[in-house]
Amino acid sequence: MALKARVLYDFNSENPGEISVKENEIVTLYSEQDIEGWLEGSNTKGERGLFPASYVEVVKSDTGTTLNNNSTSGDTYQGSRYTTSPGFTAFSPPIPVQQQHVYQASQGSDDDWDDDWDDSSTVADEPGVVGGRYSGDLDSNGPATYRVSTSSVSRGSNAQQAKSSATVSRNLNRFSTFVKSGGEAFVLGEAAGFVKDGDKICVVMGQYGPEWQENPYPFACTIDDPTKQTKFKGMKSYIAYKLTPTHTQTQVNRRYKHFDWLYARLVEKFPVISVPHIPEKQATGRFEEDFISKRRKGLIWWMNHMTSHPVLSKCDVFQHFLTCNSTDEKAWKQGKRKAERDEMVGANFFLTISTPSGPSLDLIEVESKIDGFRAFTKKMDESVVQVNATTNEFARKQITWFKKEYQKVGQAFRVLGQAFELDQQAYSLGLNQAIAFTGEAYDAVGEYFAEQPKQDVDPLMDLLQLYQGHLANYPDIIHVQKGALTKVKESQKHVEEGKMDTPQAEGVKERCNIISFATLAEIQHFHQIRVRDFKAQMQQYLTEQIGFFQKITGKLEEALQKYDNA
Amino acid sequence: MALKARVLYDFNSENPGEISVKENEIVTLYSEQDIEGWLEGSNTKGERGLFPASYVEVVKSDTGTTLNNNSTSGDTYQGSRYTTSPGFTAFSPPIPVQQQHVYQASQGSDDDWDDDWDDSSTVADEPGVVGGRYSGDLDSNGPATYRVSTSSVSRGSNAQQAKSSATVSRNLNRFSTFVKSGGEAFVLGEAAGFVKDGDKICVVMGQYGPEWQENPYPFACTIDDPTKQTKFKGMKSYIAYKLTPTHTQTQVNRRYKHFDWLYARLVEKFPVISVPHIPEKQATGRFEEDFISKRRKGLIWWMNHMTSHPVLSKCDVFQHFLTCNSTDEKAWKQGKRKAERDEMVGANFFLTISTPSGPSLDLIEVESKIDGFRAFTKKMDESVVQVNATTNEFARKQITWFKKEYQKVGQAFRVLGQAFELDQQAYSLGLNQAIAFTGEAYDAVGEYFAEQPKQDVDPLMDLLQLYQGHLANYPDIIHVQKGALTKVKESQKHVEEGKMDTPQAEGVKERCNIISFATLAEIQHFHQIRVRDFKAQMQQYLTEQIGFFQKITGKLEEALQKYDNA
Repeated sequence: MALKARVLYDFNSENPGEISVKENEIVTLYSEQDIEGWLEGSNTKGERGLFPASYVEVVKSDTGTTLNNNSTSGDTYQGSRYTTSPGFTAFSPPIPVQQQHVYQASQGSDDDWDDDWDDSSTVADEPGVVGGRYSGDLDSNGPATYRVSTSSVSRGSNAQQAKSSATVSRNLNRFSTFVKSGGEAFVLGEAAGFVKDGDKICVVMGQYGPEWQENPYPFACTIDDPTKQTKFKGMKSYIAYKLTPTHTQTQVNRRYKHFDWLYARLVEKFPVISVPHIPEKQATGRFEEDFISKRRKGLIWWMNHMTSHPVLSKCDVFQHFLTCNSTDEKAWKQGKRKAERDEMVGANFFLTISTPSGPSLDLIEVESKIDGFRAFTKKMDESVVQVNATTNEFARKQITWFKKEYQKVGQAFRVLGQAFELDQQAYSLGLNQAIAFTGEAYDAVGEYFAEQPKQDVDPLMDLLQLYQGHLANYPDIIHVQKGALTKVKESQKHVEEGKMDTPQAEGVKERCNIISFATLAEIQHFHQIRVRDFKAQMQQYLTEQIGFFQKITGKLEEALQKYDNA
Repeated sequence: MALKARVLYDFNSENPGEISVKENEIVTLYSEQDIEGWLEGSNTKGERGLFPASYVEVVKSDTGTTLNNNSTSGDTYQGSRYTTSPGFTAFSPPIPVQQQHVYQASQGSDDDWDDDWDDSSTVADEPGVVGGRYSGDLDSNGPATYRVSTSSVSRGSNAQQAKSSATVSRNLNRFSTFVKSGGEAFVLGEAAGFVKDGDKICVVMGQYGPEWQENPYPFACTIDDPTKQTKFKGMKSYIAYKLTPTHTQTQVNRRYKHFDWLYARLVEKFPVISVPHIPEKQATGRFEEDFISKRRKGLIWWMNHMTSHPVLSKCDVFQHFLTCNSTDEKAWKQGKRKAERDEMVGANFFLTISTPSGPSLDLIEVESKIDGFRAFTKKMDESVVQVNATTNEFARKQITWFKKEYQKVGQAFRVLGQAFELDQQAYSLGLNQAIAFTGEAYDAVGEYFAEQPKQDVDPLMDLLQLYQGHLANYPDIIHVQKGALTKVKESQKHVEEGKMDTPQAEGVKERCNIISFATLAEIQHFHQIRVRDFKAQMQQYLTEQIGFFQKITGKLEEALQKYDNA
């Protein structure tokens, strides 16, 4: 019996080997086992190829979908299966399509105050209105929630398209994030777990407000040129990246699927931390040098943000990833299982947070800061989209138009030189040669223009892409914070109405205080790395541009000198 | 009775104030008196405006057309009248249309060996064939000859069009030039005149072959910023250029019509000398700064070529033009009349040439050199057209595309800076300012691109335009030389057939020798100034380009420094 799957969301193929599928289409699968997140099969048009596993739902009698990624490090990658369940897939890394629909069933309960949560609503600002809108019934099962993330960066010729699609993600049901992240459960005092000392995450008061306590043992990690490795006597190939953390100085090999797995763990564990997105998945051309080099650069940026983050850099699962001997499968599986069974994820994560001694935060002030940050990320996202589209288009024009224009000038001078060469009198020869050289110099300048974007635009775009990932994370983080604030307002109202006792409301407020400290610390961290990264990147960009124009100047000076003895 | 004129050639209006007219259309003239070569009237569509006087023929009973330009320096310019007569109009400077048809009636006689003279014919190379093609009847009046010159430079957006139209001029009846120039009359021994010592023009043997004897009193002449002057209490305005020759150090004022008049005299006088074209006529916008500045630059180039030419620089009419006191109308008219009555023009010009002592030139070798030069000018003309079209298009793109692309980058950075300004923490401020400055720097770079063509492309195009004028002259010069060579071959055949005696044929050969010396001297001069001019111009172009890229580098370095304290 042929294996069938129902398509959940439209997918438009963008690379050779991929096929397009439509929502509700029934496709035939060749195997239930995906290849790094892609399934092979045929659509109703009869086209055969790959499509994202997460876009389809296998049609079978026992629809028991697994919530967790139970992949073992066997020869076929079994993790990250097509699934409609929340958690893993919901936070899977961006995939190479412009619109990414991630469907997830609600984790149950508490969807009754769904409807009025959107950007333009004044819900959070006007507590009086809130109570009226939300019922207190926390037990009804809400409808499935639906998230549309459009924050992927398209680096192609169609920058305009990239612009329109790359906006901060929005949840049709915003509230789900608050619920799903565990934020609500925590605020409501439902989280419980044993916090070991090693799990403690400290927020301290810094010069600019709450911030994560610095990692006392900072380290970095290099990612060396990846190598293609094979298994099963060459039947299966994969790319292994060589990671060398500075604190162990021991190289480990990791595959993209390991990064993918780690990313999923981190997203699940840290509700108000912006986990940097790992580079896009790509089904075809995976072994091509350009792609490998691009992915490596993306991973280097990702690693930089991981090791720069005081919380992420220290966490067990990341350390396991960085330090576990690649050949010790047993140790790897052990650490993997441990991470997957980690109890201090989601709601419980907040239990591990230790806030600075001193007064609680002024929640009005917190709200104002969060609103300011929301405005900031929105504006930054727009401008990043513009810089991205503009520099992308600029790069494309340098590679095509600019190169062509300079080479046309070169060609015209060469033709002039050739015409002059018909006159072979002694006093003409020097000029003829000089003009011929000038023609070649302009040819070279054309080439310089075409080669330049790799040096300056590409690195800038890598950075922008990483930040687009962060900016896509923040709406969810803000919603968790906003959800907590709303709960506080709600509980105050409940107290006034006599539905809740004061200590209970104080508990809500206290837990909201913890979420607020964590959120503000994360925002502070974001600003700091943003300033650090953009300063460095702009310096690099300008330095490259200066070098570029100097190279042109040098070439033209060389040409000019040819006339000295002409 | 309304004054009517028949249109001889299509004219497409290119500027406001001009109207288009079609061949054979009958137009109404408002006045028979032109305004610097333009007539005012209305076409059959009822449009009113200006069209070139030389494109129409006045329809009236007494068709007595004047051969000479009898203009007096009165208040209305009366010279350069619409005329179908040869001489003045036939050699008038290029006018601002892309195809310039100059119609001229034959100066009578000798058009019977018209038909076979074209580039691909081997007439001149295969003497055996020549005699058979040409009859010896030299007295029949041939048909009107027709010259199509397409060698105008169009500096507009439509460079491609300029390319296709700008080719070396061709005479449908090539032979006419030989006749008209007086070359034939001279070769046939029909020229006669008294050559004063001061009129003597010496060809000497130089390192590279025959060349004009250098002007023993070389000089230059500056052309200062022209001023607008008025006559008749402001009723009539004109632009006066201030000329200061180095050998007199006395400034004289000259109007465009004076240049025009001088140009006509020179063309009439010197059959095998390439008289540099004066800048284009233009009916509208004559008082606009851009136009005046452009014309001045064109006149400077023209003056440079005039004073650089050993023969032209010395001749009386040019000296009169350079030195006659602008306010002494009597002296001016006297010199003007003298020049117009000069007998040593055309055929008689050759009488003034003194060849070097020593053997005559080998006419086979001369023919080969001339053929080589013809190939050279053809190739050079093509390449000049290409350089012209390419740099013109390059300039246009710098002014539009390049500017826009760099300013878009600037705008994107500025937007990013504005987004970042929403974060007003102390550690962000430096970066925000630096990014804002970077945006401005790229704006400035865009401006640099737009301003640059004026510095490098424009001067290059001015030079190319001047050379296109020379290249358009050479076919006629070559044809005079070729005509003389053919006469030699013909006379040899006549001797063989007993139709001519040997001394007569020797006379033809001797006179052809004189024309050959003059032509080779002129070609040598052309190559020398060409190498001089293109070397200097390419150096200037590259120097400007280097300065341009250094300016960009400097601006970006300035931007980079802003990040030092960010």
